[in-house]
Amino acid sequence: MVSKRHNPSALKYFSELTDREHAIFEAGVSLGAIFHQLVGMPVNLWKKEELERALSNAFCTQPFRADIEIKINAEKIARGLIEPYNYGVITPESLDVKVIVEYGDVKVKARMRWIDELGYPLMYIEDVT
Amino acid sequence: MVSKRHNPSALKYFSELTDREHAIFEAGVSLGAIFHQLVGMPVNLWKKEELERALSNAFCTQPFRADIEIKINAEKIARGLIEPYNYGVITPESLDVKVIVEYGDVKVKARMRWIDELGYPLMYIEDVT
Amino acid sequence: MVSKRHNPSALKYFSELTDREHAIFEAGVSLGAIFHQLVGMPVNLWKKEELERALSNAFCTQPFRADIEIKINAEKIARGLIEPYNYGVITPESLDVKVIVEYGDVKVKARMRWIDELGYPLMYIEDVT
Amino acid sequence: MVSKRHNPSALKYFSELTDREHAIFEAGVSLGAIFHQLVGMPVNLWKKEELERALSNAFCTQPFRADIEIKINAEKIARGLIEPYNYGVITPESLDVKVIVEYGDVKVKARMRWIDELGYPLMYIEDVT
Repeated sequence: MVSKRHNPSALKYFSELTDREHAIFEAGVSLGAIFHQLVGMPVNLWKKEELERALSNAFCTQPFRADIEIKINAEKIARGLIEPYNYGVITPESLDVKVIVEYGDVKVKARMRWIDELGYPLMYIEDVT
Repeated sequence: MVSKRHNPSALKYFSELTDREHAIFEAGVSLGAIFHQLVGMPVNLWKKEELERALSNAFCTQPFRADIEIKINAEKIARGLIEPYNYGVITPESLDVKVIVEYGDVKVKARMRWIDELGYPLMYIEDVT
Repeated sequence: MVSKRHNPSALKYFSELTDREHAIFEAGVSLGAIFHQLVGMPVNLWKKEELERALSNAFCTQPFRADIEIKINAEKIARGLIEPYNYGVITPESLDVKVIVEYGDVKVKARMRWIDELGYPLMYIEDVT
Repeated sequence: MVSKRHNPSALKYFSELTDREHAIFEAGVSLGAIFHQLVGMPVNLWKKEELERALSNAFCTQPFRADIEIKINAEKIARGLIEPYNYGVITPESLDVKVIVEYGDVKVKARMRWIDELGYPLMYIEDVT
């Protein structure tokens, strides 16, 4: 694994953290960012894959993100009866996001998805290696 | 031109407006929506065209939008010195947006772009036919 | 009524529009902006009035807004079973917004609210005087 | 310190993490959320303190946030020459945010602020106790 780190000017701000903690912090930033930037975004259901790919690539360029997969659940977007439009907006229920952060030698898999049992979109860490 | 209108249930809310006024109203909604949804969005500069196309298609499915062209000016995004990342976020300065709304028999071309003379991103109507 | 207009440098971009059309355009911008900036915003239900007032005042400083009243319907926000938290996020269903725009001698009352019959939040013009 | 934890249904998703790591993760979520929800938000400079307080209280109700202080630097917001308006929008440069997260017996102080040397708004952990 390539050992990714901040540039030296930024590194001093993270002296309190281990690489593992730093990767976990960045995973949190990524999920918070994705949720709050995207909720409310219109979705063209005929071009949903295009939007998912473009958004995934956009958020993946934030530092230390190795891979991001943003999926929009078409059945859970807010959708009106606007015939003949196939249109809705992204809701908390509709986002399913996987983020892989690499920092130093640590790899963190984080996830955000709606969990019916809880009634809200949970952001959590699936795996750290 | 196809005569696009609201479904009958929504139409009663617009009895005060001519088709021309209605189209101008929708153009305003579109520009306000695009600015406030997109400012802050990360941009991967190597995949800028993909993002511009996906966002244009997403906002174009809102009602009565006939065409939307969202361009992100790479030189005006907020970009840090994060080598080797080619990353930034959308700013008010960086958006150049063209919206075409069709309502009834009216076609409105609206625009949002940064105007140096004003020092802010102006939203305005370029043409009504 | 005070005759509010753009500064001279901006005025040339609006030569196509009557004052009435201009006011209608600005009302559209305002509603699009409010929806897309606020959906996803956390709400502290014990301090809902404080948030409504601060957001109303913030959006009211955009040009030509004479009055804005943003209400958040506590029963329609996305709220999880997170005891003991009294927390949720703003959804399309939960916003009820009144905007008054004044341009020249024209006054426009615009509205955004969820309409069950339609299944989406309608933005429309209630009155022009 | 009160020992704050997830409700039992959510707790199983965090079995990989120590309380310290969990608190660091939540601090990251909070900063990512605040940045991406607020950039682009209009600011009434005469009522800036009201907005700062309302936004701080809103984000503080997300789980495990013990205290949040959102400050908007009036000199760094995007502000046009719109006399007589005292108006601008929140930019990445203008946000200075302090977040205190408590999880279990751990307290994390996190920060986001623009750092000129870096040219971007850094999100980092100031202290863990």
